Amino acid sequence: MDQILRNILKAEAATIDAAMEADLVAVQSPLLHEVLCHALFQGGKRIRPLLVRYSASLIGEPPAHVNTLASVFEYLHAASLLHDDVIDHADLRRGKETANRLWGNEAVILAGDYLLARAMELVAAFGGAECQRLVSEAIRRMVEGEFLQMRVAETRNASEASYFAILQGKTAALIGAACEVGIVFAGGTRQQRRALRTYGTNLGLAFQIIDDLLDYHGDPNETGKAVGNDFQEGKMTLPLLMALANAGGADRARLEALLAATPETRRAAFAEARRLLDASGAFANARAKAETLITEAIASLAIFPDTAARQVLTGLAGYVLTRTK
Amino acid sequence: MDQILRNILKAEAATIDAAMEADLVAVQSPLLHEVLCHALFQGGKRIRPLLVRYSASLIGEPPAHVNTLASVFEYLHAASLLHDDVIDHADLRRGKETANRLWGNEAVILAGDYLLARAMELVAAFGGAECQRLVSEAIRRMVEGEFLQMRVAETRNASEASYFAILQGKTAALIGAACEVGIVFAGGTRQQRRALRTYGTNLGLAFQIIDDLLDYHGDPNETGKAVGNDFQEGKMTLPLLMALANAGGADRARLEALLAATPETRRAAFAEARRLLDASGAFANARAKAETLITEAIASLAIFPDTAARQVLTGLAGYVLTRTK
Repeated sequence: MDQILRNILKAEAATIDAAMEADLVAVQSPLLHEVLCHALFQGGKRIRPLLVRYSASLIGEPPAHVNTLASVFEYLHAASLLHDDVIDHADLRRGKETANRLWGNEAVILAGDYLLARAMELVAAFGGAECQRLVSEAIRRMVEGEFLQMRVAETRNASEASYFAILQGKTAALIGAACEVGIVFAGGTRQQRRALRTYGTNLGLAFQIIDDLLDYHGDPNETGKAVGNDFQEGKMTLPLLMALANAGGADRARLEALLAATPETRRAAFAEARRLLDASGAFANARAKAETLITEAIASLAIFPDTAARQVLTGLAGYVLTRTK
Repeated sequence: MDQILRNILKAEAATIDAAMEADLVAVQSPLLHEVLCHALFQGGKRIRPLLVRYSASLIGEPPAHVNTLASVFEYLHAASLLHDDVIDHADLRRGKETANRLWGNEAVILAGDYLLARAMELVAAFGGAECQRLVSEAIRRMVEGEFLQMRVAETRNASEASYFAILQGKTAALIGAACEVGIVFAGGTRQQRRALRTYGTNLGLAFQIIDDLLDYHGDPNETGKAVGNDFQEGKMTLPLLMALANAGGADRARLEALLAATPETRRAAFAEARRLLDASGAFANARAKAETLITEAIASLAIFPDTAARQVLTGLAGYVLTRTK
């Protein structure tokens, strides 16, 4: 990402952090405050709040309290990570001990509930009924996405269609809502809302596809994690699904055999699997899909005047494709 | 409870159930639908929704969609029970297997999140910003109540003051909000809102105090559970806190020794403990406290015209004191 854009985003992220810190002063329990700070202040990039902020700035100076409304999306994101880590019994996230490891499930489930409630309260206070509806709907879709994922895993019925259906809920719903809430807050038209919804949804989908690709081709020195984790876990990411759909008979049979084998076998066969995926065109196809999504996302911004906000959103979309970590 | 009142409430509860059933049709995941039905349709009395309904009826015919708004409080109650049962690793609730036992923590944490989000969405759609604010605040206070309880348990610093502070959050906040949301929805004045807040808060507090007393004096054939559970667990309920504050030196020392002992010792000494509490005046004092709260609750309704709705709310308050199960 271009250094100027990076600096702008960093400065704006600091104002979001300040809004959250000010809001958390109202928390009475010292333990709850500690858990919330741990969940919120781990050096995240504040992508979702920044999307609210810049979407709200596309058609003029954003209304007052835009940072408070923006922080709602960091609260919701953090709430979902807190509950996810309890569900997965996760000990580490981004190399740091998880809240559930440090304080146990009770404090963490409740802290997630607190963030959900506080997020709703802030939207009610500053965003109005339509923003409220968008946020509640996004949370419901996130939950439905998780249930769909459980079902697909159980029935071993993964496909490109189910991959996108799950992702629409789990990742894209909240990012799409962040962008749409921003423009609704600024008083945008229906057409402008539709454009921002497309932008945000596509951004979320493309981000995940690139994540899937980095798991096969990333540089561990940059990503901070070893390649091959997804394949070892048998995770049905887009490149793998595309390979299963398009590989020739023998290659597909080999991939299916590996997926039926143990994680240890898959780890040992990772280089081979990567060659099979490459031969099937899966990496190129997945990358092309991400590129199409981002092209569409950027095109949807064309109806807005060429402002700094539009340039930032365009830059962010481009970054999704070029990121190496 | 008077049989006529009981029949009225039962008929009204059925209309709340119908509103919830209609709402759940929108749920896409079959598993999520199953978990939600299990959580919501276990023959509960729908006390919170009924409080919304009758509070909204105190100053005239309630607005349309009152049942949908009312069901929000059953969703929130169910969400908190779902998350509580995960936290407590509970296998049984009201004699039936808990959702977490049947479907595991993942489905249940997420189902609770779904109910929180859907509750918020319904308030946003039908109740307006002020109802929304009241509901979000109630959830935050419930969470803060749980954290206060953890802290009091950890510091072994229970007192009558901390008992009421915890209860205000854990139980009374949601019931008070249900009553206040009802009258706000009907367009009530500030004075009417204050009255309903008092009514609901006191009802919630008194309900818990009677629960505490039933654990010492209830008839297992009626309550469906053995007496002495709270004492055996060392739970600092109001009668016990009052006894520790007022018992004479030797009696207090004996109670403190029992609280420092094992659950088995406490179970064996339950009859003795009950005598000590009785001698200290704790049961009479706790009951007097509940009676004062209910008298205040009923008195707060005096500003409303003498309608069927007021009679139902008065009857409900009276029932809290006379219930034997």
